[in-house]
Amino acid sequence: MDYALELKRQVARVERGIDQHVPAAATRPGRLHTAMRYSLEAGGKRIRPVLALTAAELFGPADDSALPAAVAIECVHTYSLIHDDLPCMDNDDLRRGRPTAHKAFDEATALLAGDALLTHGFGLVAEAYAGQPVLAHGLMRELAAAAGSRRLVGGQMEDLLAEKKANATADELEFIHLNKTAAMIEAALVMGGLVGLATRSRPIDAGNVEIQALRNLGRHLGLAFQIMDDVLDATADTATLGKTAGKDALADKTTYVKLYGLDAARRMAREHTASALAALATLPGPKDFLHALVTAMAERKS
Amino acid sequence: MDYALELKRQVARVERGIDQHVPAAATRPGRLHTAMRYSLEAGGKRIRPVLALTAAELFGPADDSALPAAVAIECVHTYSLIHDDLPCMDNDDLRRGRPTAHKAFDEATALLAGDALLTHGFGLVAEAYAGQPVLAHGLMRELAAAAGSRRLVGGQMEDLLAEKKANATADELEFIHLNKTAAMIEAALVMGGLVGLATRSRPIDAGNVEIQALRNLGRHLGLAFQIMDDVLDATADTATLGKTAGKDALADKTTYVKLYGLDAARRMAREHTASALAALATLPGPKDFLHALVTAMAERKS
Repeated sequence: MDYALELKRQVARVERGIDQHVPAAATRPGRLHTAMRYSLEAGGKRIRPVLALTAAELFGPADDSALPAAVAIECVHTYSLIHDDLPCMDNDDLRRGRPTAHKAFDEATALLAGDALLTHGFGLVAEAYAGQPVLAHGLMRELAAAAGSRRLVGGQMEDLLAEKKANATADELEFIHLNKTAAMIEAALVMGGLVGLATRSRPIDAGNVEIQALRNLGRHLGLAFQIMDDVLDATADTATLGKTAGKDALADKTTYVKLYGLDAARRMAREHTASALAALATLPGPKDFLHALVTAMAERKS
Repeated sequence: MDYALELKRQVARVERGIDQHVPAAATRPGRLHTAMRYSLEAGGKRIRPVLALTAAELFGPADDSALPAAVAIECVHTYSLIHDDLPCMDNDDLRRGRPTAHKAFDEATALLAGDALLTHGFGLVAEAYAGQPVLAHGLMRELAAAAGSRRLVGGQMEDLLAEKKANATADELEFIHLNKTAAMIEAALVMGGLVGLATRSRPIDAGNVEIQALRNLGRHLGLAFQIMDDVLDATADTATLGKTAGKDALADKTTYVKLYGLDAARRMAREHTASALAALATLPGPKDFLHALVTAMAERKS
């Protein structure tokens, strides 16, 4: 398996899926749907939807059954980026090398495009899996829990509060990373797994051992991913990163790098990567691509 | 049936339901959950959740089976108010006689509390009806469609665009009112009806004749409600209204009053009320309360 080639293929599937499963830009109101697509089509690594597709393929042959779930996850992820970039939050002008939504449109349109993408995440799952209501329910339950006030939004809130303090604690930092980052990566793998089980006519059971292994994999991959984000913010340059680098140090933000130092942060990322690979090893099916993806995340430069 | 007494009883049920089905204020992060409850507990007419409860009771004896769906609708409605009040949208300082969320907390907290309430609407339905996945799926599908980019958020977007123009057209005004206001009132009645069908072990079919009648009732009630909102903004005072009055004229906003005049607007509200009552007449079960509610909406002073 050629990792770079396979990644490219999966990303292309995701981008085709986005085009297929999100209303056309001309749908009334055109400005809203144009803004939704502007942010969705800005590129990015597409890690979460690719994880959903590959998790589904652990349980059976590759088909497009997990594509709507993958696109739904990317919609929810993109909403969180749009709202996070707003002036009252991180006030970021640049995202993936392009103007952020509120810069390209205006604040109100960006706010509403985020709201609409979050809602579309649920709507898409509800429509696309309408013929399998038990699966649809399982997917929406997972998505709502991961995106909710105890996880994704809760992580954003604690992140915001931590920024206002001189020093956030290790406990606060872990809460933020577990919820702001790892939650949606866990959800991507679990939702992909649920679709995979359903296509094999196996019970949709979030408590089964394979779903638990996917959740564990996602948790460690998410933490490794976020620690590397802190490392890259401290070491990379804006052009390579595609977003403003060095913001954390400038804002005196508590990160793994600030709390533990650069070497220890890198070591912690490696440890979480090892735990993610251990969880992956317990899973069935073709695992080469996921193995390479987990490894690549730990070694990434942007 | 004493309408005022029965309304008070239903509103009390809704407020008990909110307390029961929304995370406690102390749930981590406390600031987020405190803000969510601040806006949810601000009172208001509770029209949408009361409609959901009473629609369910058309199909069988009163119990609490529709309460989680009713609370979910109020969560989504409250999110839309919080985001609508933000400085980049209507920039309103007062809501239901109290400071708006971004005034009582700050913009970022209000933004996230709105995001979390929207997500909680879906999460609550997913958890509360987990034992009835077909019903849960039907409810979430309805909620996502009503709150999505073609309806609730789409209505907000067109409303915003219309405000920037000298004169919005009748078509634009109808799009706004159908989607910004009527969509969630329709969804409340339909979701209540779906729970009512399920408790009678009847198929959850959004296409059945009773669900269609509920949708029709909601559409006309929603339009009557919104036209009365325009009338009240033009005629009531801030103290009675519990929110800033006269804003539409000040902003030269296109409303039914501006487009058709006060008398014609009042007549149109009466016509939609009559159509709502005609739809109600085709439905089974005890209808006195819904009849009184529809009539009261058309005659309301705030």
